[in-house]
Amino acid sequence: MPILKIPGFRFAGVACGIKKSKGKDLALIVSDRPATAAALFTTNRVKAAPLIVGMRNIKKGRLQAVVVNSGNANACTGARGMRDAEAMCREAGKALRIAPQLVLPSSTGVIGVPLPIEKVRQGVRRAAASLSPDGFMEAAEAMLTTDRFVKIASAHCLVDGKRVRVAGMVKGAGMIAPNMATMLAYLLTDAAVELRCLCSMLRSAVNRSFNCVTVDGDMSTNDTVLLLANGMAGNRQIRQGSSDSRRLAKVVYEVMRKLAIKLVEDGEGATKVVEIHVEGAASVAAAQRVAVSVARSQLVKTAFFGEDPNFGRILAAIGYAGVPLDPDKIDVSFNGIPVAKRGVGITANEKKAARTMRRPSFRVKIRLHQGKRSASVWTSDLTHEYVRINSAYRT
Amino acid sequence: MPILKIPGFRFAGVACGIKKSKGKDLALIVSDRPATAAALFTTNRVKAAPLIVGMRNIKKGRLQAVVVNSGNANACTGARGMRDAEAMCREAGKALRIAPQLVLPSSTGVIGVPLPIEKVRQGVRRAAASLSPDGFMEAAEAMLTTDRFVKIASAHCLVDGKRVRVAGMVKGAGMIAPNMATMLAYLLTDAAVELRCLCSMLRSAVNRSFNCVTVDGDMSTNDTVLLLANGMAGNRQIRQGSSDSRRLAKVVYEVMRKLAIKLVEDGEGATKVVEIHVEGAASVAAAQRVAVSVARSQLVKTAFFGEDPNFGRILAAIGYAGVPLDPDKIDVSFNGIPVAKRGVGITANEKKAARTMRRPSFRVKIRLHQGKRSASVWTSDLTHEYVRINSAYRT
Repeated sequence: MPILKIPGFRFAGVACGIKKSKGKDLALIVSDRPATAAALFTTNRVKAAPLIVGMRNIKKGRLQAVVVNSGNANACTGARGMRDAEAMCREAGKALRIAPQLVLPSSTGVIGVPLPIEKVRQGVRRAAASLSPDGFMEAAEAMLTTDRFVKIASAHCLVDGKRVRVAGMVKGAGMIAPNMATMLAYLLTDAAVELRCLCSMLRSAVNRSFNCVTVDGDMSTNDTVLLLANGMAGNRQIRQGSSDSRRLAKVVYEVMRKLAIKLVEDGEGATKVVEIHVEGAASVAAAQRVAVSVARSQLVKTAFFGEDPNFGRILAAIGYAGVPLDPDKIDVSFNGIPVAKRGVGITANEKKAARTMRRPSFRVKIRLHQGKRSASVWTSDLTHEYVRINSAYRT
Repeated sequence: MPILKIPGFRFAGVACGIKKSKGKDLALIVSDRPATAAALFTTNRVKAAPLIVGMRNIKKGRLQAVVVNSGNANACTGARGMRDAEAMCREAGKALRIAPQLVLPSSTGVIGVPLPIEKVRQGVRRAAASLSPDGFMEAAEAMLTTDRFVKIASAHCLVDGKRVRVAGMVKGAGMIAPNMATMLAYLLTDAAVELRCLCSMLRSAVNRSFNCVTVDGDMSTNDTVLLLANGMAGNRQIRQGSSDSRRLAKVVYEVMRKLAIKLVEDGEGATKVVEIHVEGAASVAAAQRVAVSVARSQLVKTAFFGEDPNFGRILAAIGYAGVPLDPDKIDVSFNGIPVAKRGVGITANEKKAARTMRRPSFRVKIRLHQGKRSASVWTSDLTHEYVRINSAYRT
């Protein structure tokens, strides 16, 4: 089981009445002291109010608390939305006796509906009163929307002779696309890390994890990945370029990769997680582009659902990836079973390949025979349940 | 009713046993004399064998016949696929007593399975024997795969005092994406047109029709749009830049636009055709980019299916279109009913907007307030039926 305690962090998750289901919908994450903070936000030009406030608050690289509500995204809500996001920070600051500028606000849920701010404020007060070092799971649960399960991961390593922990929680099921999934992800560590080092650690890990998963190709207005380092482990501050920095970066990446794959597992309506692994590309960027093109293809994703090793659709998606390549050199296999060699189908292997697709997760390997670079992208299948969830979301 | 006869053209559609359903699966289109020919093919780097042969045969801008089979795409079939595509042309040439180089071959259907070439050759002979000026509908029918209905359109105009006809047929239901739908489209005219003029007419019409529709965002390996002009109308040859050329270009565009919208109507599983109209953009390219981003969003398309005027998903898709814009200026309306003004939702209008979405076709208007350019893209909804068709296609 993941380590659910990180020294110096406390958590709470409560129900404050935003969700009709009466489920938990407000989470608090609080560090006992101001933490070094790095974050990445959606590149969508339409940004929800809490992101605009959060981007302002994180400017100095220090935060002490995160307040998250689910059930309402506070996006496309105009001036009122901005006031509400600020009110969330003010309320949290007041309850925790810290400056509101040390609070990062997040919201997730329906877009375009004003936040029921009085409920949120009450929720913040109740959550602040119930903070506990053991509340990790409750907080992770309180940020879920259409998610089917709580998604957490953790790991640890030795740094400067001290045991250092990294734990993360992520929310997200739909609006999952490369360049940030629709998701809120919070990673916490008790390591002491220099700000510049923390920022590059975060960016590098996101590029190889959250930016390598896709469910529906839609990019949300609320995406946030935050990494807080509160230094409670007592190590000497980790600096850019040090071996300690590489060690911690690896652990941060591991945790984030686990969270990213869990996002796909929990993809709306998903019944399968498929790794699209492209190798023999001229560059990593080319490999990733081909992988994303296949991973996003609606026809490929419905074929995964139908357990149909339809290499033709895969080859077609490779062909429109916009990468120069020679179709007559492409090999495709499913869990090691070749279904196309040099661009031509191997129909004799189809039944075997279809059988391996019954597994809840499998790997499609694409060899381009152009170079030595590779990349993986994780995707889900496109199912009836996806259509059901998303055609009935608000009704 | 469309005009189904074009002087100097004959048609046939027969069943030769490629389709398990025993339905018509082989079409011939023949001009009494070599016609001036312009074509556009898929930009997918993976191109089916018939496209490679067709691109070679059309080089001189003259063709006399088209042979099309459905049920098998002859794509990803290697050297054998090339031989089979050439055999189709040879067989047609022999039966019609013309050079095989004057024949354009097309195939559509399952990818990666060798063409049953003997059946195709027999089919070609039978089709050649049953050619008729009245066979337009039969030919249009014989090229269908998952299509639910025959898609044809026609129009006419006066050129040089002569009545000139343009008629077209299109096949396609899935793998429909901008930059050519997955489709085969053949447009025929009895006008006499200079080759260069015919080519620019075709390109301009495709850009504003087939390149403005999307069903699933997947681009096929077999897309072909062909325009044949056999000159039987007896007009003086139409030259580039003339008023006759503009007149005919307009008619070609009209026919193509009708065919393109029919493609969306027949989109796999589609229950609605939605026009995404973007105005107030800085350029036509920007307007089109925003429209395509919205038109391709899985979340927007499932919301259309659910008759949910979810402007939040629309704003999110506008935001990730990659076009610089000010979210606080965007207006969105459904059939004239405003659902968002200056980036903020108008919840009071939601029920009314939901009602207008019950129609089989409606229009989403997006105003960016940035400039004076506009563009429209047509899309379908994403439905259970889409998932059913595409997860069970080959099984």
